[in-house]
Parts: sequence; C-alpha cells; structure tokens
Amino acid sequence: MRLWDFHIQIDPEASKPVFLQISHAVVEGIKSGRLSPGSPIPGTRTLAATLSVHRKTVIRAYDELVAEGWITSTPRWGMFVSSTIPELEPASAHAVTAQRRDPFRIGFSLQPHLKEVGPLRAAPGVFNMGSRPDMRLAPRTALARAYRRALTWSPESLLGYSDPRGNPDLRRALSAMLKSTRGMSTDSDDLIITRGSQMGLYLAARVLLKSGDVIAVENLGYPPAWEAFRQAGGRPVPVPVDEEGLRVDALEAIFKRGRLKAVYVTPHHQFPTMVTLTAGRRLALLEFARRKGVAIIEDDYDHEFHYRGRPVLPLASMDRWGVVIYVGTLSKVLAPGLRLGYVAAPRPALEQMTTHRIYIDHQGDHVLERALADLMEDGEVHRHFRRARRIYQERQGAMVAALRNVLGEALSFDVPAGGTTIWARVAAGIDPADWAARAAERGVLIRPGVFFAVDGRSRPFVRLGYAGLNEKELREALKRLVEALPSNKKARRAPRSR
Amino acid sequence: MRLWDFHIQIDPEASKPVFLQISHAVVEGIKSGRLSPGSPIPGTRTLAATLSVHRKTVIRAYDELVAEGWITSTPRWGMFVSSTIPELEPASAHAVTAQRRDPFRIGFSLQPHLKEVGPLRAAPGVFNMGSRPDMRLAPRTALARAYRRALTWSPESLLGYSDPRGNPDLRRALSAMLKSTRGMSTDSDDLIITRGSQMGLYLAARVLLKSGDVIAVENLGYPPAWEAFRQAGGRPVPVPVDEEGLRVDALEAIFKRGRLKAVYVTPHHQFPTMVTLTAGRRLALLEFARRKGVAIIEDDYDHEFHYRGRPVLPLASMDRWGVVIYVGTLSKVLAPGLRLGYVAAPRPALEQMTTHRIYIDHQGDHVLERALADLMEDGEVHRHFRRARRIYQERQGAMVAALRNVLGEALSFDVPAGGTTIWARVAAGIDPADWAARAAERGVLIRPGVFFAVDGRSRPFVRLGYAGLNEKELREALKRLVEALPSNKKARRAPRSR
Repeated sequence: MRLWDFHIQIDPEASKPVFLQISHAVVEGIKSGRLSPGSPIPGTRTLAATLSVHRKTVIRAYDELVAEGWITSTPRWGMFVSSTIPELEPASAHAVTAQRRDPFRIGFSLQPHLKEVGPLRAAPGVFNMGSRPDMRLAPRTALARAYRRALTWSPESLLGYSDPRGNPDLRRALSAMLKSTRGMSTDSDDLIITRGSQMGLYLAARVLLKSGDVIAVENLGYPPAWEAFRQAGGRPVPVPVDEEGLRVDALEAIFKRGRLKAVYVTPHHQFPTMVTLTAGRRLALLEFARRKGVAIIEDDYDHEFHYRGRPVLPLASMDRWGVVIYVGTLSKVLAPGLRLGYVAAPRPALEQMTTHRIYIDHQGDHVLERALADLMEDGEVHRHFRRARRIYQERQGAMVAALRNVLGEALSFDVPAGGTTIWARVAAGIDPADWAARAAERGVLIRPGVFFAVDGRSRPFVRLGYAGLNEKELREALKRLVEALPSNKKARRAPRSR
Repeated sequence: MRLWDFHIQIDPEASKPVFLQISHAVVEGIKSGRLSPGSPIPGTRTLAATLSVHRKTVIRAYDELVAEGWITSTPRWGMFVSSTIPELEPASAHAVTAQRRDPFRIGFSLQPHLKEVGPLRAAPGVFNMGSRPDMRLAPRTALARAYRRALTWSPESLLGYSDPRGNPDLRRALSAMLKSTRGMSTDSDDLIITRGSQMGLYLAARVLLKSGDVIAVENLGYPPAWEAFRQAGGRPVPVPVDEEGLRVDALEAIFKRGRLKAVYVTPHHQFPTMVTLTAGRRLALLEFARRKGVAIIEDDYDHEFHYRGRPVLPLASMDRWGVVIYVGTLSKVLAPGLRLGYVAAPRPALEQMTTHRIYIDHQGDHVLERALADLMEDGEVHRHFRRARRIYQERQGAMVAALRNVLGEALSFDVPAGGTTIWARVAAGIDPADWAARAAERGVLIRPGVFFAVDGRSRPFVRLGYAGLNEKELREALKRLVEALPSNKKARRAPRSR
C-alpha cells in the first residue's frame, strides 16, 4: 500500500450517495491540484477500511472514476491519478459540483437600486385584468409554420449576425402597412425593429437625452416609459391630461424652465385614461415641437384596436418637419411575448438608435422577424387582427354591461372608442390601492390609479382590462372584484348609472 | 356641373399610374379636410376635360373611390364626398400615402454620435473570416420542431409577459450544464438569460458603473464590450496582456488612481490573442478582487471550443466570495442570430440586472428559450456541439497547414488550444489595416490588430477566423488574401517557419 495523503470526508447521513461523495472528492482533489497527475490511489480494500465503508462502495466509486478517465488502473501497479484530465461531459453521471457558495454573498458594490415596475403577470388561475391581449387567440400554428419556413431560408442571413435594424422583409411589410393604413410615408429604411415598444422607447431616450435633460410626460401616464427615460439620464416632468388629451398649452412653461428635449405622448388612446388627443391639440403639439426644436415621442401602442368613430391617423402622418419619433408594436395584435416593436424616425435619429442597439443586444431575432414578414405578406396577421378586434369589441361590450350591472355604484366610466381597458372612477370611500390589494388576494389583478401618477399620489381610479377574459372568466373576475370591495360599497344589483 | 375648387396635379411622366394619382389626390383632400363630407364631385367628363386625361382614366379612379367608400354615387344628383370616411384597409389597392417628407429632415437635436463597432458581416459571396461559427451546421430542423412544440405549450406563460430572467426550463438546463461541466454551483435562480452575451455585458455595466467609474479591460480586447461599459458611464482603462493572459500585477496601480469598480476579462481564450489565463494569474486576480471589493466580469464566450490540453474551469467555479459576474453564450454553439446569452451572478447583482432588463426590453423570447431547453434536455445541443467542435478542430488544422503553406513568410502564429480564430503576427513591412482593406476589396473580411486596441494604435497582427469556411472556401479565401498582400510580400511556397 502506498501512502496517500488525500483525505475524504464521508457523511453517511447526507442525501448524496456515499460512492458519489467519494468519487466527487477525488475529482475535486484532482481539479484543485491536491492530487497530482500520476499520483497513486489506494486499493479498494484499503480505502474502504480507512473510510469505514463497504468495499463495494469504493469499487463503485472507482468504476466511475476509471470510466471517466480521472484514474487509471494498471494490472501490475494498481491505480493512479491519470496523467491527463478527461474532457468534462455534461451528460456524465458524474456531475462535478463546486463547493456550493452562498448565492447571496457579493464581494463588490452596486449602483443604487432601481424600483421595478412592469406589466401585470398573473399566476395560473389568477385573472389578469391588465391591458394584455388574449394569448389564446394568437395564430400559433401559422407562426410555427412560418418559423420553420424561415429557418430553411438562407441561414447566413437569418442565423448569423445581421442588420441591427431588423430583417428587411419585415421592415418592408411594416412600411407597407404604415403607408396604407396610417398615412405615414415610411420606407423600410426609416424603420428599426425593436424587442417590443419598450426597447423603442429606451433607444429614443438614449439618442435624445443626457443627464439632467427634461422630457415632458403625460400625467397620468406609463411608468415603464419614465424608467427608460431615467436610464438615459432624463428627468420626466408631468403635464396634465384632460378630456382632450395632453394639455399642450402647459408645455410652454416647462420649456421656459430649460432643458426640455422631448415630449412623450400616447395620442391615440391616452395611457391610461383612453382619451384621444383632439385635432386641435395635435396641431398645437406639432407646432410647439417645430418651433422649439423639441422631439415628440409618439407611442401608438394599440393603434389597431379602435372600435368607433373616425380612424385617427398618427401625429407621424402629419409630420413634415421631422419632429416625431414614432413607436409602434405588434404586441397587442399578436402576443407581447414575441417582443415585436418598431420605431419610425428621421434618418439621423434612426442611425444613432441603430448604433445604440448594437451595444445593447446587437439585433433582434431575424428568424422570427422573417416569419412575421411571411405572416404579414400572406394576410395572416390581418386576418388574426380582424378576428381579435371583433372579439375584443364584443368583450368591451360585455365588460361595460357587467360593470354597470354589478359595480354600478362603485364605478363610473366613459366607454372608450377603442383599446383593451376601462378607465373607471371609483366612488368616494373606495381606496383604489386597497381594493386592488384585496382583489389580488382573491385572484384578480387590477391597477389602481396611483400606479400611473408621476408624482406617486393616489388617484380615485382603477384600470380594468377585459381583452384577456372570455365571458365566463369575466363573470368570475367581477364577482371576486365585488367581494373585494369594502363591505359598505357592495351592491349586487344597482340601477344603471353613469 | 357644380363648382369644385379642389385642384388635382397630374404628372403623366410619373411612375404612379394617372388614375391612382387622381384617386390618391381626392383621398388626400378628404383626409386633410379640404374636401368636406358631402361636397359634390365633378362628373367624369368634366374632370377628364379639366385634367386633359382620358375619361376612362377618371372613371377608373372614381370606381376605386366608390368601392372604398370615399365617394358616393347617386343616380340623380351625381357624385359626392361620402359623409363618413371609410375604414382604412391595409390590403386595399388604394394605399393612401401621405405627402412624402424628406426622411433626413430632423427637427430636434441628438446626443453626440457613437462610433459603430460590430461583428463582421459579409455580403453573400464574401468570405467572412471573423470568429463566427458555421451557420450551415446549426440544427435547424430540430430547432423548428422544438419551436413548434414550444408554441403548443401554455400560451399564457410563453406568449404573454413572463419572467424577465428568462424561461425557467432553460435556466434549469443551463444550470445543470454549468454545474456538471464548468464546476459552477449555479442554480436556475442564479441566472438571467440575455439576448446574447452583449446584453449580459450591458446589464453588468448598468449595475456596476456610473459616470466616471473605471473598468479595467484587457488591451488588446473586445471593443463592443468597452462600448457597453461606456454607455453606463464607465471609462475603460487598458491593462496589458502577455503570454499568460491579463497582467494582473498592473491592476494595483489602476486601483490606486481611484474609482476602479470592475475588471473585464476573457480568461479562457483571451480575445483576441487566444492565450489562456494561467492558474497563477487566476488566483491572483481573484485575490485582488476579493481584497479590493472589485467585480470581475468573466466573458466565457467560447468555453466549449477547447481542443487541446486540460479543460480549464472558469474563474466563477473558484469564486467563493461572490466577486465574479459570469457571462456565457450559446452563440458559438448554435448560432449568433438566436441571441442566446446568460449571466450567472451573486443574487443582489442579478436582481438589479433583472430590473434594468425590464426597462430595456422586458424579457427575452420565452418560446425560443423553451425550445432551447427542449434541445438541451434531449441532448440535441450537445450532439450538435460535439459535431461542430470536431469540424472546427479539423478546420483549425486545415487553416494552420494552409497558412504555413501560402502565407508562411507573411505570418507567424501559435496554434491556439481552442477557439475559432488564429491570431497571427504579420511580417515587417505589412500594414495589417491596409492588408484588411485590400482583402475586403477582394471579398475576404479579416480584422487588423488596430481594431482590438483600446488606444486605437496599430498593432502588427491580424485575426483570421476559420470556423465558417469549409476546405474549398478556405483555399479560395487564402488565395485572395495572398493576392491582397503588398506585392513584395507575396511568396507562394515558403519554408515552414514559426
């Protein structure tokens, strides 16, 4: 028996089998250098005696080690640490685990924490009354087919490093759509495809803002946008919203205070109040931007879902002066998880946004983008959109009727011309945040007004999404919402009230 | 005939058919309000005479307008602008285009321009000798199948807003892989899946650095990383690299100058010199980080492609103190276009990186991630990897032989232990940037040494990738490289030299 200094700790109570504890310890020793290549290994009987384990156990451990090349067995001289260390196989039964370190231990300092605000995400069985579309409607079969077709295209251009502005076919299809339905004179080279409209906002912020610059935002508004602006150093300054939309007249005073670089608006369906920016305000806003050299970031997040009244074309369709950065998305039309957004902008801005994009993630998924172009070109997206719009419009009707029926005393609201949510004022005595918390306990997610306030102050409103709920789910969700009300506010049958 | 003040400009020479010019002008007039709902339209004979066009042309224009609802024809009274404006149909033959504005006109100012540095992208027919893998090897059929399967899973969790850290199945599969092959004690909750390693670097920079902070980087090194650091306000400071890797001893002086927050390293195959950080330097680097509270960003961009010598485990496998942020990628194993990277980090850092991610693009593509988890679980990724590695190793051999054969006098190099490129010193008298430019004219893309220098000064080296070229392509590419040499350096048959 040769001397072997290496010690192995065995814990018979541990969940890891003893033979694995032995073989892991040997491997750990080899990797750490404590057992050098070529050093002798004790025989199975010897080690078994030393460790007070059955010889079978040591044999099993050694068998693993030999099979994987960590130790070598020679008939005459016994066993040795191999002189070359074997390739690590991921599928090997012999998974080498480093000593588990504390995952929360951190040896360096971080920048100050950011607050996290993101979309409502519901666990299974919980009713998500955010603004998201119904993912069950998404054209999954067609998408899978188009994806497969796209993968058979030139792998170089779709699977390699490609144009950071996005797949040219999809940009062409989007360009055609924007020209024919939104009155925008956008060519494919005026577009960048982004991972969701969020990335579009993030890139716009990077090219417009530096530390201390001001960006005027609607109050109430869309918090993830403000965070994107802050990440670029921008300071969101609130501008009130009334029944005509953004109070454009309030911009002059903000401009006078200095450093105003951009205005962020959701003119089609103001987020979250759902009002549409009137024609007069639109002209005034464009005029203001033109005169002051201020950019307008137009977030047209659910352009397609307009149910009543004249179609309203975007600010971008009236932009002769290159003041508008237009952010669109296919999230509502298809599915938010696909992260398909786009930005149309004056070329100098687009070029810089593209450069910034290279440093963030270089490009989108050109296979998916090619598949989407396919679906747009053969009309599949449009067919899906028409079906979804019909369903959402019906669901809006169902929601409106149900709300008046069971929550008529607790809420009052206008029926919006489009979109996927109701913006409702709560009756006096109802604290929206409290109601939302109690609703969450009962498995319904709604947003209270405070969430949308730049100043973080409570507002007596709630936002109720209906697109994701079929009739049965709507009934159940509203039932739970009623139960979640403070008890003096619950009225089962209320007169039809405004 | 009723009066009609509206004027239509016709350009018979224009590419747009005259009947469309007419109908577009009418629609434009209606949309701009110059033609009000209910106003009369001239008869076809009258308008034809006024415009000096054939009556058939006007009839065709009017037919379009009536079919789409812009104008109404009454038997007795003639034609009128419709009192309600029709829905805009994307597929309509009648695409309404706004007056085309100048796409380069911009009405606001931008932040200073960024320089653009990205991966080499070759047009079809051009030989890309960057470090990219061969996309023709990617398992496209298996991926398409897995993608389709993933789409049939719960649409809510894969198509809706989901976990910004990435699909849990893929995080589990990556965790198992890291544990069993890289000695890392990484659980699925220690990971975030990013859109390529570039996003991993970008997120690490956001949580570590603020304006004016210093990050030590290898010189020569990887420019897109420096840009990610700069975007967070960081200032990359160069540290020399020798045959053992990063000169860890040089970090002390940098630390003394203040504000050093992190060190960025590519210890497995130093980018671009391909040296491996030796064991002694690794221990010294970890010790330095631990003592000074400085983070190590370890970019293990092509861990799998190691052909000779002992497998070298990452710094992260030895990190008991939570100093390492480990950035990995599946780009080399699968395809860069899929943008599948990941970061393993101490939990506090990971949480903040996740929050930042929400504001950039919210999340990755969970359908693709689920498909990838599928391919990892059934061993497809591993099978593909083994095949690719064998092929790349062969191609390395072919490249080495060919270089010695046809460029033996122009270049000298070590054969790296792995990776997908050769880092070669050019002979005196050869300007690498000039050679690269002449090679590009001949349809071969290579990188000259200056590209990798933090100080932007020329270095007498070139980087030659071979993974993407089969034997025939390699021969042709090298032939063109030889032709691109300055004439006094061309030697067809050179003695085997170092």
